[in-house]
Amino acid sequence: MKVQTVWNEKMQFTASDGGHSIPLDAKRPLGEDAGLLPKQALLAAVSGCTAMDVIALLRKFKQPVDSFRVDAEGETTEGGHPVVFKEIRLRFLLEGAIDPAKALEAVRLSQTRYCGVTAMVCKAVPIRYTVHLGGQEIGAGQAEFSA
Amino acid sequence: MKVQTVWNEKMQFTASDGGHSIPLDAKRPLGEDAGLLPKQALLAAVSGCTAMDVIALLRKFKQPVDSFRVDAEGETTEGGHPVVFKEIRLRFLLEGAIDPAKALEAVRLSQTRYCGVTAMVCKAVPIRYTVHLGGQEIGAGQAEFSA
Repeated sequence: MKVQTVWNEKMQFTASDGGHSIPLDAKRPLGEDAGLLPKQALLAAVSGCTAMDVIALLRKFKQPVDSFRVDAEGETTEGGHPVVFKEIRLRFLLEGAIDPAKALEAVRLSQTRYCGVTAMVCKAVPIRYTVHLGGQEIGAGQAEFSA
Repeated sequence: MKVQTVWNEKMQFTASDGGHSIPLDAKRPLGEDAGLLPKQALLAAVSGCTAMDVIALLRKFKQPVDSFRVDAEGETTEGGHPVVFKEIRLRFLLEGAIDPAKALEAVRLSQTRYCGVTAMVCKAVPIRYTVHLGGQEIGAGQAEFSA
């Protein structure tokens, strides 16, 4: 699996696999906000990986998903290098006539067995999650992989 | 730091900070290759973070960079879940009238002190790198952060 990250100018880069690309930049005043921060790309990687699991599992469980979103938030360390996340919080926001137990099970399976990006990142940063269905929080947990 | 990852259809998602976005999708036949794989977004996060350090450090060292690219490659595990990277390899490709010692020092500082994404990911996956100047490999190393 490959990605090329090419310098454009100043602090602006484009990461690409040849077909799809990610604009990356630093925040002002170092950069010009012309792209995502690399740490936001990391949050996107975690969110996208676990979100794909959840959609695939809910399909397998024959649950009708009307809409679905994962909000990811990372709190960074202060006062020294390197700046890393202290914690990542994921909110799984589902809408549809979905059995709450099935929704929780899909997220739990992703966050404890299937999601490769979560499995890597949670070795460095605790990842906590909440699951919401129809606007109500129905459960919470933490990423944890055996072995 | 926040990112929203919204389900579009099938296995397609869009991760966004409100201004910039990343298209994410699974590979065929599960998805339709309409975006990057989440693990490619992880490689982009690592590459972009360390690339910004290197550009900032070479500017500080008053070195003229004509062009710069980071190629990232991740080899994944096989035969079980979760699928993770066994190793990540970074190739720093610089062009310009740059002092080779300064180029190596910029990469080394990023990969051992400054790059927050590398500092997190290398707790889970070994990250090895080579540095190339004018098409010649001038050095190699491995990400390693104390503390």
